[in-house]
Amino acid sequence: MVNEKVKVAVNGYGTIGKRVADAVSLQGDMKLIGVTKTKPDFEARIAVKKGYKLYAAIPDRVEVFERAGLSVEGTIDDLLEKADIVIDCSPGKIGAENKQKYEKAGVKAIFQGGEKAEVAEVSFNALACYDRAVGKNYVRVVSCNTTGLTRTLYIIKENFGIKKVRATMIRRVVDPKEDKKGLVNGIMPNPVSLPSHHGPDVQTVLDVDITTVAFKVPTTLMHVHSLNIVPEKEPKVDEIVDAFEKEPRILLFSENEGFTSTTKIIEWSREIRTRYDIFENCIWKDSISVVDGEIYLTQAIHQEAIVIPENIDAIRAMFELKDRDESMKLTNKSLGIGEIVP
Amino acid sequence: MVNEKVKVAVNGYGTIGKRVADAVSLQGDMKLIGVTKTKPDFEARIAVKKGYKLYAAIPDRVEVFERAGLSVEGTIDDLLEKADIVIDCSPGKIGAENKQKYEKAGVKAIFQGGEKAEVAEVSFNALACYDRAVGKNYVRVVSCNTTGLTRTLYIIKENFGIKKVRATMIRRVVDPKEDKKGLVNGIMPNPVSLPSHHGPDVQTVLDVDITTVAFKVPTTLMHVHSLNIVPEKEPKVDEIVDAFEKEPRILLFSENEGFTSTTKIIEWSREIRTRYDIFENCIWKDSISVVDGEIYLTQAIHQEAIVIPENIDAIRAMFELKDRDESMKLTNKSLGIGEIVP
Amino acid sequence: MVNEKVKVAVNGYGTIGKRVADAVSLQGDMKLIGVTKTKPDFEARIAVKKGYKLYAAIPDRVEVFERAGLSVEGTIDDLLEKADIVIDCSPGKIGAENKQKYEKAGVKAIFQGGEKAEVAEVSFNALACYDRAVGKNYVRVVSCNTTGLTRTLYIIKENFGIKKVRATMIRRVVDPKEDKKGLVNGIMPNPVSLPSHHGPDVQTVLDVDITTVAFKVPTTLMHVHSLNIVPEKEPKVDEIVDAFEKEPRILLFSENEGFTSTTKIIEWSREIRTRYDIFENCIWKDSISVVDGEIYLTQAIHQEAIVIPENIDAIRAMFELKDRDESMKLTNKSLGIGEIVP
Amino acid sequence: MVNEKVKVAVNGYGTIGKRVADAVSLQGDMKLIGVTKTKPDFEARIAVKKGYKLYAAIPDRVEVFERAGLSVEGTIDDLLEKADIVIDCSPGKIGAENKQKYEKAGVKAIFQGGEKAEVAEVSFNALACYDRAVGKNYVRVVSCNTTGLTRTLYIIKENFGIKKVRATMIRRVVDPKEDKKGLVNGIMPNPVSLPSHHGPDVQTVLDVDITTVAFKVPTTLMHVHSLNIVPEKEPKVDEIVDAFEKEPRILLFSENEGFTSTTKIIEWSREIRTRYDIFENCIWKDSISVVDGEIYLTQAIHQEAIVIPENIDAIRAMFELKDRDESMKLTNKSLGIGEIVP
Repeated sequence: MVNEKVKVAVNGYGTIGKRVADAVSLQGDMKLIGVTKTKPDFEARIAVKKGYKLYAAIPDRVEVFERAGLSVEGTIDDLLEKADIVIDCSPGKIGAENKQKYEKAGVKAIFQGGEKAEVAEVSFNALACYDRAVGKNYVRVVSCNTTGLTRTLYIIKENFGIKKVRATMIRRVVDPKEDKKGLVNGIMPNPVSLPSHHGPDVQTVLDVDITTVAFKVPTTLMHVHSLNIVPEKEPKVDEIVDAFEKEPRILLFSENEGFTSTTKIIEWSREIRTRYDIFENCIWKDSISVVDGEIYLTQAIHQEAIVIPENIDAIRAMFELKDRDESMKLTNKSLGIGEIVP
Repeated sequence: MVNEKVKVAVNGYGTIGKRVADAVSLQGDMKLIGVTKTKPDFEARIAVKKGYKLYAAIPDRVEVFERAGLSVEGTIDDLLEKADIVIDCSPGKIGAENKQKYEKAGVKAIFQGGEKAEVAEVSFNALACYDRAVGKNYVRVVSCNTTGLTRTLYIIKENFGIKKVRATMIRRVVDPKEDKKGLVNGIMPNPVSLPSHHGPDVQTVLDVDITTVAFKVPTTLMHVHSLNIVPEKEPKVDEIVDAFEKEPRILLFSENEGFTSTTKIIEWSREIRTRYDIFENCIWKDSISVVDGEIYLTQAIHQEAIVIPENIDAIRAMFELKDRDESMKLTNKSLGIGEIVP
Repeated sequence: MVNEKVKVAVNGYGTIGKRVADAVSLQGDMKLIGVTKTKPDFEARIAVKKGYKLYAAIPDRVEVFERAGLSVEGTIDDLLEKADIVIDCSPGKIGAENKQKYEKAGVKAIFQGGEKAEVAEVSFNALACYDRAVGKNYVRVVSCNTTGLTRTLYIIKENFGIKKVRATMIRRVVDPKEDKKGLVNGIMPNPVSLPSHHGPDVQTVLDVDITTVAFKVPTTLMHVHSLNIVPEKEPKVDEIVDAFEKEPRILLFSENEGFTSTTKIIEWSREIRTRYDIFENCIWKDSISVVDGEIYLTQAIHQEAIVIPENIDAIRAMFELKDRDESMKLTNKSLGIGEIVP
Repeated sequence: MVNEKVKVAVNGYGTIGKRVADAVSLQGDMKLIGVTKTKPDFEARIAVKKGYKLYAAIPDRVEVFERAGLSVEGTIDDLLEKADIVIDCSPGKIGAENKQKYEKAGVKAIFQGGEKAEVAEVSFNALACYDRAVGKNYVRVVSCNTTGLTRTLYIIKENFGIKKVRATMIRRVVDPKEDKKGLVNGIMPNPVSLPSHHGPDVQTVLDVDITTVAFKVPTTLMHVHSLNIVPEKEPKVDEIVDAFEKEPRILLFSENEGFTSTTKIIEWSREIRTRYDIFENCIWKDSISVVDGEIYLTQAIHQEAIVIPENIDAIRAMFELKDRDESMKLTNKSLGIGEIVP
């Protein structure tokens, strides 16, 4: 019944928030009741044009919106009153500050990967640990890089076991819309001291021995991961390909079809998806290889989109709406995941 | 009647070709009968998935497509036999080589701005000189930069007259999908010798005294034009704004709504258009100023999309389907031009 | 006599400060008595290795230097006590905050172009207004862009008169060493509202009617200026070239010698100068043209180095050591200006 | 005696050639007898200014040089007649084409890493296999990436043994002077199929089990290598640091001294070296770590300079002038290697 839909609020209609809002709107068992913005910019206007109810993320800025000719329905506090759950999509570290507000309002909350694990009861990845979020009040969807690593490693682990993972991550320095921060001509170890925090972050959702290293490079489109995985039993390349092909949240790309770099993967996605959002891991099929019993592969991760399906599944788990496979299937269908293969 | 639709072939399903194909498909008075590709890459697969009939642009490569599991309907020659008009969207200078083929097949042809003006009977911009293409067999739609300049100058000329234009153009060095060519960290006068060829190119479609200078910079998103226009009668800023607001193919963007750079304009377009295509000139409203009787303004041009509506209008002119205003109105409506303002 | 040398302190041994320190060290009539740093990083170590006396720019950070094994001679206050003049090379706007300290210490001071004109008694460019700084206590050397514009316009004005200047400036977004700020893939009007502040800034040193527009682009090497100059009497291209060739602080580069972009100019400078510093305006000779009586030309400006000779000349003016021509000659000789032409 | 100096010709005065020419000029036991260029551009002019004798790399282009006012001493054939050895610094794959000419002239030759191993009798790295080149006629100095890997791995192997190496290489896409090729906004697996050719290339100079993966990213300054090394006996971090500190061709950089990215390493080098050439491997000291008995570390490699000392040592080996340690010591001293530490 319509009135049984989970009432979802999105706090922070930015890069992640606007995608979560759209995704929630596409679900049959959820209802987007409003989104918040800190200022009346073009993203706020688009929210209104889409019919989303707009609230001021910072209560005393209501007037700023009014003056800009964009009336709001109220403040974040008003929005929380009506919500069953809030998806916190504020910038990193701000989510933790917001938590008190959510507790006070008595709403469940999902935090993003920019927050520390301690902000929530559990960290979440749909494939790897859906059940852990069932019935929980505070859940953290792990970051774009961690989500990308976890999906691929989960499939390998399920099929071949994993003794050890070594990952080098080549990160886009800022998102495409950013125009003040960045790295114009250089490569930045991020962090310099090794190993990086991404390994332990994967371990919040998947039990695997993993050591990670990360770098920032001057591009905005996608992260790229160079993976070395020592499996428990040595697979053939074909078996790995088969395992990946069964998982809709993983796509395989071939160089001989023109996918020579992240620029081509994005060009492909521009043809088929709003905002060229790629919710799936993009693995170069030709990169999958087995050398001395160890698996090597390269994947690209669209940092703006990859966590969106995970947020939707987390909502279902927290409200015990569906089990893992049913939830992922619904989410996939609504977002077009698994419909078109490159 | 359906059988009276103009049968359109697109030769070269790349950056421009795929957009022209989609745009033709959206018109009531045209029918896309096929597109050509030189190789069976992901762009070819997308064409097939969209239901477009695929032909080999190079006759002896039919087998290459077959081997890749992508069967073609025939070759460019087969396609031309069925066409009323071919839109040549091959890389610069190749169009001229193709012309003989088109003449032999007895089809009309539209060439893009990468070709010299001599390839066609007339150069074309819908606003500035629609009528000149009426009934013609060979028409050249001017380049992205020239189209962007012409639209803005046409509006200024119609409203206030133009004595002189000085334009500095800051060009994106390559399109987003390119991954071999470029300029990584530098600024390149293009050309070094002044003035640049863009001024004379504008004069193929608009009678105006214009001197241009151009530079390549390491970005892929949009060109930016810095314009100085000496009008015949001095306008007020508001009058200029009014004139632009009346033309759907020009959009006005404000810094206080968050449009601080081309990254934000593209971010906006990602929300509302397939492939974030912006068919309109993007003028910064706040940049429009009048100093000592001279107009200054800054505009951004989405090089991948700006010429698409012009190609559609050119087809209508060549087949005498509609007059300028009717054609532009139909084209605008089909592409969403004028529906959403930033 | 040695003890009559002007005792110069450099406050802020960063991008500008380290170059000023080196340049001062090369002068016969000046003595570098010390430089300040806010933290004990590699730049501080290089200063010490060069034999420069190091002082803590922030008094209570002396211990931070000690702990890093880099002992300082004292604080900025200790340094000012011994100085005749301090060259303030702190980040923009900080110079104004420092002024009180300089006044209290009774030392003359030079500020850089990041400060507002009001910080000093006069703004300074050696060619255009050396005499104005004679005997002054507080002088502001105008910014890299303004210095670059002023030199070229001064030469044109002296030789042909100037009625009007229109300049479009394409700015490197950050300096080469920066790795946190920037603009990765886009073009940013800077500012959006026209005209930009650079025009009025030129007018602080040269009496000329000028309107400017500026953009940031993702490169670190050099700024590029696209100039349109309406002279009082129309020159021939050769006469313009001759005028520029007589001024050592202007270099002419030709495309046919391989200078196709700023990358090649920097490559050239890497062969002949420490830190590839280019103290001269770099004008593309092939770009100089006269269209309808108006001059067009393109110049590149090495933002890290261009103001260094101006700082040296300003010191001489303030202490009445030499007249303009003698000072510029000494400065040029010490820095290698005019010795090698491309 | 002067007439016993090895007479060295440099064929191709470009990125590598000009650095080899300078380095040869600094040696007491070698004499640079001439360099070749294909065209009379600014690099040719700088060669002449430095006093290097200029020859036409392509015999029938002598006139092109004459017309540009740059007279040449003759052609490559004239130069080879006078040489004991030629250092081939032509673009990749051209060296192999040149070999016949060298054989015919009866001169020894060194090829660069862009050529296949088969072009020469042996591949060369001074530390790892100096002796192998002793007395040889055709030697290939391995590429920048391979040289960088080999030095670091040689030190680890000598001190702790190596069972296995896994390297992910993040490559600068083009050199700083390039302005036509590149990758503007993206990450490119290079190659897509794994493993990359760099592993086998290392094995041409060092016996080690190594698997490599490589990517191109939009930067020009340095390559960065992310290394995982499984040693035979587990070292402590301090022991690894000690081992590196003993080798002058390896430099250690610390984040807390400001070395946060390749931009800062280059900024440091701009202060101390012509063309900011870094002949040494740049290892981030803070990155050196041992996890589960495996070593992780990050190094940056200045692709333009790293092979220069190797070319000099190769000459000495081929003419049996000195043994490894003596040659490296001479080369190091002449180039300033080991004099300044960051």
